[in-house]
Amino acid sequence: MDEFALIDRIVAILGERAKGEGVLLGPGDDAALVAVPSGFDLAVTTDTLVAGRHFPTDASGDLVGARAMGVNLSDLAAMGAEARYCVVALTAPEPNIPWIEAFARGLAEAAARHGVAVVGGNLARGPLSVSVAAHGIVPRGEALVRSGARPGDRVYLSGALGVGYAARLAGDPRFYRVEPRLALGVSLRGIASAALDISDGFLSDLGHLCTASAVGAEVDLESVPVCPDVDARTALSCGDDYELLFTASAPTPVAESVHPVGRIVVGEGVTLFDAGRPVALDPNHPAGFRHFE
Amino acid sequence: MDEFALIDRIVAILGERAKGEGVLLGPGDDAALVAVPSGFDLAVTTDTLVAGRHFPTDASGDLVGARAMGVNLSDLAAMGAEARYCVVALTAPEPNIPWIEAFARGLAEAAARHGVAVVGGNLARGPLSVSVAAHGIVPRGEALVRSGARPGDRVYLSGALGVGYAARLAGDPRFYRVEPRLALGVSLRGIASAALDISDGFLSDLGHLCTASAVGAEVDLESVPVCPDVDARTALSCGDDYELLFTASAPTPVAESVHPVGRIVVGEGVTLFDAGRPVALDPNHPAGFRHFE
Repeated sequence: MDEFALIDRIVAILGERAKGEGVLLGPGDDAALVAVPSGFDLAVTTDTLVAGRHFPTDASGDLVGARAMGVNLSDLAAMGAEARYCVVALTAPEPNIPWIEAFARGLAEAAARHGVAVVGGNLARGPLSVSVAAHGIVPRGEALVRSGARPGDRVYLSGALGVGYAARLAGDPRFYRVEPRLALGVSLRGIASAALDISDGFLSDLGHLCTASAVGAEVDLESVPVCPDVDARTALSCGDDYELLFTASAPTPVAESVHPVGRIVVGEGVTLFDAGRPVALDPNHPAGFRHFE
Repeated sequence: MDEFALIDRIVAILGERAKGEGVLLGPGDDAALVAVPSGFDLAVTTDTLVAGRHFPTDASGDLVGARAMGVNLSDLAAMGAEARYCVVALTAPEPNIPWIEAFARGLAEAAARHGVAVVGGNLARGPLSVSVAAHGIVPRGEALVRSGARPGDRVYLSGALGVGYAARLAGDPRFYRVEPRLALGVSLRGIASAALDISDGFLSDLGHLCTASAVGAEVDLESVPVCPDVDARTALSCGDDYELLFTASAPTPVAESVHPVGRIVVGEGVTLFDAGRPVALDPNHPAGFRHFE
């Protein structure tokens, strides 16, 4: 099967997922054409998964497709955007047709679950990796950004830390089936003062939020939900949890799965409190997942 | 230098190229935010360059950055779009800071030359490759697509075939400094009935245009401009020329560098004529560059 036939096969598997509201021209031309509704801005993000680094080299295609979609949509969730379109660049070492077809199925299933159209892509030969560029729409001026946290805001976290890490260690498919918090993100428009997803790890990403907002944060360890299989210090920095971390003026109506975990203060950096006393971070648990260390 | 410091360095090198008209939020948040002007649609494309396949593994960073930008913008040119935004996913095997800085400079220079903002990206560790997703705007309904060619239209080509191939063989930096035909693409709105870029090779891409338009094409070999260093049959199929191939009802006012090379007919596929007689294609020169053959 040559490149063009394989692309046709992928597009056939995508089926209705290559179309969608606002998709004027899907795969097959030099570029896709999409419409952005009047009064909305476009959120654009890209994320790459590399075999052997972000997933095992023998991971099945459907799981890699699901994860590639999920991690990108999580960034759109963090902006309060409604996910709409994506393009997918797959690089694969050989024409392993069944793997690539499974990849397309995984992509299509995740796209269907979140109402996203796969409008185009690229297929290249090389070491296995996938880059997705995902696009969402958000009413003008209502996007959630990292820089809006103010002293006195409370800090909230959706879900528990360490879930993704535990799934990865256990080889649990849930590691791949990232559930981006898109509905939560949309519901936080006008409520959250700042938001991000914690793909780099809770402490690292809270640090990013503080830097972007020029504030400090205090976190109460006992209020941070942690996956029972993971020790608390690891959970604070392990990454792989695609939850939302956000700030809002307390008290705010929030979803059931959302927990207040601390507060924003004048200053800089993150301070942890255990039973009301500040605790030092263990240098053996670096804050976050840094690809270039 | 850790991942976040390196990203800061890249963004510093991009400087003003990380901003631009319509860029509401550039690099540094979970996603970028861009505005698409009312009455315009968005053209979205992605292309990947893999070290050892699309460029030599020892190519300098600035050249790889330039080519990654250029080949993506060529797809926007083929849509008649005005290039606006892009996101860049770089995967690199080690923190080779000088190479990555040079890459950012090459990217920034190409972006500046074509008025494109680099609004975000991703940095991952792995075998060297780069995926760009590029975005352009085009007035609603005016995009150039592949499917509009009609019998009786003439076929036009910008520039000469084989130039990119010859530059690649010679190790000429012009191989990397792809000049996307953006101004020509914009000028063809309302004139061209169909268009694409010939990155896969002239014959292969003319075949794509014919398939998409459900027509055939006849090409007069003596009217096809070919780079003097390359034999004509190779030039027809070698790829790496980022020229535009388009159709229009004859005669049309076209730029100086554009040549009529044939005509659209009822039927299917491409027929070559040499001095008025049909010629067979040499099976040793497959039509186009197929990554998965």
